[in-house]
Amino acid sequence: MTQTATPDRRAVDVLVSRHTASLEEAAAALAGRLYYSRYPESPSPRVYGDGAAEAGRTAYEAHLGRPFEALADQPSDGTTVGDEVSPYGPRLGVAYPRLDVAAGLEAAREAMTGWRDIGPRARAAVCVEILDAINKRSFEIANAVMHTSGQPFVMSFQAAGPNAQDRGLEAVVAALVEQERVPESAVWEKPGRDAPIRMAKEFRIVPRGVALVIGCNTFPTWNAYPGFFASLATGNAVVVKPHPRATLPLAVTVAVARDVLASVGLGRALVQLAADGDAGRLGAELALRPEVAIVDYTGGPAFGAWLEREVAPLGTEVYTEKAGVNSVVIDSTDDLRGMLDNLAFSLTLYSGQMCTTPQNIYIPKDGIKTDEGHVSFDELGARLSAALDRLAGDDARAVELLGATVNDGVRTTASSLRALAAEADGSVVRESRAVTHPAYADAVCRAPGLVAVDVSREDVYAQERFGPVTFLIGTESTQQGLAQLADTTKEFGGMTAAVYSTSETVLEAAREAAVEGGVALSENLTDGIYVNQTAAFSDYHGTGANPAANAAYTDAAFVAGRFRVVTTRRHIP
Amino acid sequence: MTQTATPDRRAVDVLVSRHTASLEEAAAALAGRLYYSRYPESPSPRVYGDGAAEAGRTAYEAHLGRPFEALADQPSDGTTVGDEVSPYGPRLGVAYPRLDVAAGLEAAREAMTGWRDIGPRARAAVCVEILDAINKRSFEIANAVMHTSGQPFVMSFQAAGPNAQDRGLEAVVAALVEQERVPESAVWEKPGRDAPIRMAKEFRIVPRGVALVIGCNTFPTWNAYPGFFASLATGNAVVVKPHPRATLPLAVTVAVARDVLASVGLGRALVQLAADGDAGRLGAELALRPEVAIVDYTGGPAFGAWLEREVAPLGTEVYTEKAGVNSVVIDSTDDLRGMLDNLAFSLTLYSGQMCTTPQNIYIPKDGIKTDEGHVSFDELGARLSAALDRLAGDDARAVELLGATVNDGVRTTASSLRALAAEADGSVVRESRAVTHPAYADAVCRAPGLVAVDVSREDVYAQERFGPVTFLIGTESTQQGLAQLADTTKEFGGMTAAVYSTSETVLEAAREAAVEGGVALSENLTDGIYVNQTAAFSDYHGTGANPAANAAYTDAAFVAGRFRVVTTRRHIP
Repeated sequence: MTQTATPDRRAVDVLVSRHTASLEEAAAALAGRLYYSRYPESPSPRVYGDGAAEAGRTAYEAHLGRPFEALADQPSDGTTVGDEVSPYGPRLGVAYPRLDVAAGLEAAREAMTGWRDIGPRARAAVCVEILDAINKRSFEIANAVMHTSGQPFVMSFQAAGPNAQDRGLEAVVAALVEQERVPESAVWEKPGRDAPIRMAKEFRIVPRGVALVIGCNTFPTWNAYPGFFASLATGNAVVVKPHPRATLPLAVTVAVARDVLASVGLGRALVQLAADGDAGRLGAELALRPEVAIVDYTGGPAFGAWLEREVAPLGTEVYTEKAGVNSVVIDSTDDLRGMLDNLAFSLTLYSGQMCTTPQNIYIPKDGIKTDEGHVSFDELGARLSAALDRLAGDDARAVELLGATVNDGVRTTASSLRALAAEADGSVVRESRAVTHPAYADAVCRAPGLVAVDVSREDVYAQERFGPVTFLIGTESTQQGLAQLADTTKEFGGMTAAVYSTSETVLEAAREAAVEGGVALSENLTDGIYVNQTAAFSDYHGTGANPAANAAYTDAAFVAGRFRVVTTRRHIP
Repeated sequence: MTQTATPDRRAVDVLVSRHTASLEEAAAALAGRLYYSRYPESPSPRVYGDGAAEAGRTAYEAHLGRPFEALADQPSDGTTVGDEVSPYGPRLGVAYPRLDVAAGLEAAREAMTGWRDIGPRARAAVCVEILDAINKRSFEIANAVMHTSGQPFVMSFQAAGPNAQDRGLEAVVAALVEQERVPESAVWEKPGRDAPIRMAKEFRIVPRGVALVIGCNTFPTWNAYPGFFASLATGNAVVVKPHPRATLPLAVTVAVARDVLASVGLGRALVQLAADGDAGRLGAELALRPEVAIVDYTGGPAFGAWLEREVAPLGTEVYTEKAGVNSVVIDSTDDLRGMLDNLAFSLTLYSGQMCTTPQNIYIPKDGIKTDEGHVSFDELGARLSAALDRLAGDDARAVELLGATVNDGVRTTASSLRALAAEADGSVVRESRAVTHPAYADAVCRAPGLVAVDVSREDVYAQERFGPVTFLIGTESTQQGLAQLADTTKEFGGMTAAVYSTSETVLEAAREAAVEGGVALSENLTDGIYVNQTAAFSDYHGTGANPAANAAYTDAAFVAGRFRVVTTRRHIP
C-alpha cells in the first residue's frame, strides 16, 4: 500500500468549477464528433496578445546552452543529457537532468494514490488546467518544436501548440466520459421467492500503473499529448521519454504539468521527464519496468514492433503509431485547379514529413476527365508539378511551408529520386529541389519530388519513403487504383487516403476500398481542408484497423483500457 | 472486396422490432449495473414447460454415439473428430466434422460483408434471437455441460444455461451501446473569416475480422458466450474452437446460431465450429491465421501466455482468462454460522473447480471474535469442516453439489493433501473425501479438503491448486492477511476475494487491499450470494487488473476494440 498524497481539495474544487461547463460542452462535441476547439490556432497578437510571439521566442532562447532547471527537482544522479540539434542548424545545448529511474517510478507510484482518490472529474479539471497553462506557453513551445522537428514556424505554432492541445483535451474528455460511464455505486435487487435479495455495490476506478509516453522527432507534442492526457486523466502517473532530438517541447510540457499539479497539492511525481541521448536505450529500459503498465509510442516500426513483441505480452497496454503508405486515387474532377492546389499543399507542407502525407497517387494511364477536358497521365504530372511550383517556387516563401528536413534518412530519400526511378523503370517527373533558407544557412530544405512508376512496381512504392517523394502510379483503371489502395493499406498500413472523382459509383467503390484497407477517406478535397490534417473531436487520427497504428485518436478503445474497475459488494439487511 | 451476402431485410426488421424494447431495458440495467435477467434460472416446469427437462435429456442422448449432423454443412474434409468422455463415466462418442480451415475462414470473411452492412442494431437483435433460441435448448445443453465438465446437473442448467445466456446478452448490449456511441454522420462546421468551412462526415463501424473463441473444459458456455457475442455483435464472424473434452455444448450453440442467421438470410458461415481432438493443435493453428483478428481464450496459463506472446504481436486482440489464487480474509464476524455455511457452499460447489472458488483463507493464528465468542484458529477449521459435512456429508446429496472431477490433475490434487501438508509443514484439517455417485459408478467425486499452513509458506499456497483443496493460512494479524491478499493477487492473479469483519476500519483496509490486488471484493457474505458467483449486468467477472485475466465481463474495454471506425469526409458546398 502506497503513501497517500494530500491534494488541496478546495483548490481542486476551484478547478472543477472553472472547467465543468467546458468539459460538458467538449463532451457533447465529442459524442457528436462535431467541431470543437478550445485553443485558437491563429498566432495573431489579437488572440495571444501583443508581444506574445516575442516573449515566447525569448523564453525559448533562454533555454539554450544551459541546464533545464525547471526539472531540477526530479530524482536524478546529478548528470545531464542533451543531444538536440536544430534541423535549421544550431545545436540547442540544453542539458536535461537524467532521471533516476527507480526513484522516479517509486515516487510516481506514491503520488498515484492521491491522484486516484480525487476521482475522474477532478482529474479532468486538473488536466484542463494543465492544458490551459501549456497553451500560454504556445510560442515558446512552437520555437522549441520548430528547432527540433524542423517544422516551419506557423505550422509548429498551430500543430504543436493549439491543435496538439485540442487533441490533448479530446483525450481528457474521452477519458472522463469513459470513467463516468461506470456508476459509483448500485443497489442490486434480485427478486426472490419471499423477499428480494439486495446487495450494495461500489465500483471504484483504479489506474493501471505508470504510463510511459515515447515521443517522436517530427511531432513531439501532437503525437504525445493524446496518450499523455488519456493516461493521466484515468489516474495513472506519466513518464515522458521524448525523442533525443525533440526533448525541449516535452520538457516544457512536463514542467508546466508538474507546476499545475503542485499548485493543488498533488504530487509533481505524477508527471516526469526521462530525457535520453542519441544512443540511449532508456525507452526500452522503462518499457520493461514492472511499474510501467501502459506505453504510448510514435516512431519507427522497428522499435514499435519490439514493444508489441516484448512488452505487450507482459500485460502492458501498448499503443503504437508506426509507419505506412498513404494513397490517393484520382479518377476525375470538376475542379482540376482546386484538386492540384490542394494536393500540392499536402505534399509541400513540412516537406512531406507527416505520417499523413500522401505518398502514392494512382492515376489511370489513359488520363482523367476534368473540367478542363481530358488530361493525360503525363499532363497531370506536369500540372501537379506546376502547382508545386506555385507554392514552393520561391525559396523565401517555400521555407515557410517546407520547413527543414529532420534527418539524414529524409535527405537521402530526397536526393535519390533518380535512382529510385531507375530502380522502378520509372521516370523523375520533378526533382526534389534543394531550397536555400534565407535565415538558416545550415538548414537542408527540400521541395517535393515526383516519380512516375507503373502499378506493377509495388516493390518500390509499397513501403514508406518518408519525406518529399511522391509516386505517380500509372494504373489500368480507377478500379485497379482503388484495389491497390485497399491492398497496400491493409498490408503495409496507412494513416490517410483520398479520392478524386465526379462519379458517385466510383466514390462508393472508394468508400468500400477504404473500409477494406481500414483507413479514413477524404473525398474531392479542393478547399482549405487537407488530407494530411485531422481535426480533434471530429476526425479520428488513425483507425487501428491497419498496420500503421493499433489505435485511434480518440475513440473509446484508446481510453477504456487505461483504467480498471474494482467492485466491492455486501448484503443490504 | 468480398462477396456480399443478401440478408432478408424484412425478416431482420421483424427481429429488430421484437427485441428493441428488451435491448433498451437491458442497456439501462448495464449502464447502472443493476439487476437484470432475461433467462430464468429456475429449471422448474412452471417456467420451462412440462416435459422440457425430459425432452432436453432425450435431445442430448440423441447426439451420443453418432455424427453431429447439424454441422454437416460446414466445409470439411469429410473426416470427423471427437474425444469426449463424461467425467461421470460414459464416452460420448459424438463425431464432429473436422473444419476445413482455409475454406471455413474464406466463407466467414465472405459472410461478414452482409453482417457488417446491416448495422449494429440489427446485429444486436439477431444476437438476441440466437440467445432466445439457445435458451430453448437449455436442458439439452445442461446435459451436455454436465457430461463434459462434470458439473452437477442443476448447476449445469443454471450456470451453463440461463446465467451463460444472460452473460451473452450482456456482451450483446455492451457491444450495441459501444457501437451506437459512434454517430453515423456529422456536419462539421469550422468558423472562418468570411464563411464557415463545412464538411460532411460519415462514420462507419467495421469489424476486425474473424474472431476465434477458445473454450474451456469446466465452463464451456459460460466462459465462451461473452467473447462469442461481443465479437459477433460487433460485426465479426466467429469460429469456436471448443475444448476437446467439452465440445457438444458449443456444437449445439453454433448449430443454433447458424440456423437463426440463415433464417434471416445471413450467412451460416458467420458462426463455425472447429472441433479438435485431445492431442490437437487447432487452436494454435487458427490463432496464427492472418484472417483471425480477435482471440478469446479461457484455460490454462501456458497456452494463454503463448497467445499473448505469439499472437498478440501480430495485431490480434487477445482476451485471456487463465489461472489465479482466490483469497479470503477472516477477521471477525457477527454471524459465524452464516459465514461458515456460505464459505462451505462456495468450497463445495463443483468441488472447487471454479476459477472463482476461494483457495486461500487467511485467519489470525490467535483466532477471531465472533457472535459465539472467541474462536481459535483450530476451532475455526473444525467448524468449517463441520459446515462442509452438513452440506456434503451424505453422498447422494453431496454429488448434487460436487459434481464429478473433471480431469486427472484435479484428482491428483484431491489425493495429495497429506503430501501437500507435509511439504508445507502444515496439517490436513480435513481430507478431500471420496464420494460415491449413486448413479454413475465411474464418476470420481471429491468433497473439499482443508490444509492448515503458516503464512510464511507462500511457496505452497501462492499458486493455483485447481480443485477441492483450500488452505487455512495462519497469520500474525488480519493486516498481514490483507497484505497477502493484495500481494499474491497482484503477483499470481485472482478472480475473486472476500473478507469477513465487523470492523469498518478493517473493511476499509480490505477495500484498499482489493484495489492493490486489482480484484473484486465480497464483504461478509452470509446469505444466498456466494463469492464465486457473479451476476451479469452488475458484477464484473474479472478485472483485467491482475494476471488472472486481462479483461472483464463486460466492461467497455472488452467490446471497444472489437470494431473500428472508418471515416469518410467531403466538403459541403
